[in-house]
Amino acid sequence: MSKVRLHLDHPLAEGQPVPLGEDQAHYLFGVMRLSVGDRLSVFNGRDGEWEAEVTDAGKRAGRLRPLEQTRPQEMPPDLWLLFAPIKKARTDFIVEKAAEMGCRRILPVQTEFTNSERVKAERLRAHAVEAAEQCGGVFVPEVAEMTRLRDLLATWDAGRTLWFCDETLAGGVGPVPERHEGPGAVLVGPEGGFSEEERGRLRALPYARSVRLGPRILRADTAAVAALALWQATCGDWR
Amino acid sequence: MSKVRLHLDHPLAEGQPVPLGEDQAHYLFGVMRLSVGDRLSVFNGRDGEWEAEVTDAGKRAGRLRPLEQTRPQEMPPDLWLLFAPIKKARTDFIVEKAAEMGCRRILPVQTEFTNSERVKAERLRAHAVEAAEQCGGVFVPEVAEMTRLRDLLATWDAGRTLWFCDETLAGGVGPVPERHEGPGAVLVGPEGGFSEEERGRLRALPYARSVRLGPRILRADTAAVAALALWQATCGDWR
Repeated sequence: MSKVRLHLDHPLAEGQPVPLGEDQAHYLFGVMRLSVGDRLSVFNGRDGEWEAEVTDAGKRAGRLRPLEQTRPQEMPPDLWLLFAPIKKARTDFIVEKAAEMGCRRILPVQTEFTNSERVKAERLRAHAVEAAEQCGGVFVPEVAEMTRLRDLLATWDAGRTLWFCDETLAGGVGPVPERHEGPGAVLVGPEGGFSEEERGRLRALPYARSVRLGPRILRADTAAVAALALWQATCGDWR
Repeated sequence: MSKVRLHLDHPLAEGQPVPLGEDQAHYLFGVMRLSVGDRLSVFNGRDGEWEAEVTDAGKRAGRLRPLEQTRPQEMPPDLWLLFAPIKKARTDFIVEKAAEMGCRRILPVQTEFTNSERVKAERLRAHAVEAAEQCGGVFVPEVAEMTRLRDLLATWDAGRTLWFCDETLAGGVGPVPERHEGPGAVLVGPEGGFSEEERGRLRALPYARSVRLGPRILRADTAAVAALALWQATCGDWR
């Protein structure tokens, strides 16, 4: 059986006790059946991965002792994913995938054709944490609150290149994304695509690049994974 | 409202009537509420996309008349996806994504660490059809019956390059996939990865190339989409 991995918020340092809350105690001792003396992997997104030992195992609380650091803290490239929330299952999926693919920040954005007016950022954060736990990551991307795309672009740092996945390029021949230095972001639209006005505004931004993801129309969640893969292979840490 | 798209098996040619079976009649006239004179898009994977008109609309049968071809038949590159079936929802997802990403064939393979012994190829085909319907595709990839990876490799055409996604390369520096000519295939392992023996055998194959998908471990479904995106951008029709 593979070792239990747990994300927690407490600082991790050799021998420094880590108190566990009710949910964590329930998960480790109730669900995963760990007991005093058992070992697990823990990470907090800042101090790398640690092997830890259970020193107290109660029903509603417990305690761990970090033994040694098993992996240093690693940060993904400075890559953001901007996406327009879609149906709940696919939104959850996009967040999970963005965490696996190595995004630093995940930003739900409201576009003209976005259906949902709000997303539960807490639920999305829980998905990002779970993806990191399951995939051996030591970093959990930040999930921002929903913002209007317009407002986000109004204060955009022009040093961050924006890959704008333009589904209207699907029919013809379009630009193949090229390597750039520095921070990046990938923007994926909602199911209905972007409005003409949005598309015009995006194309005119000096820091934005239209990206064509092949000749077929992709669902938003597919487009997100595909564009992140191309960015990582071209500009990120897959090179 | 966007136009209804329907995949059917019948040949499509101008004015040649297309009979509808019970399921199709139920979907078009019961669920989608179409009636005589309404128009929809149809495709069969061979004759392109056609605009068709409803000429008979019964409870258990019906008839369409193709009016004009709206898109020629297009074939994706000669790319196969080999994957080890995992949990049902993620297996369905992989098939959907492979159809969107432009695979010609989808081959579920049994590896040493594959959990499921069988998959319902019919259900997977239905997912491939649905993905093509929803994404405006005119081609539906073939879904093969489950085969042992060993048996598949025993009769492999050496002219088809096999991208083998090797998760043991995740920690270090590995090969970046390079462009090749001719047909290709992407192989994604099960959750537990490949066995040492399998990995050794795969690495020794003259037509296989180990591919590293970045420094983080990816779930199988994420790895499939990411590897297909890189293949399409490097060797396929996204260039």
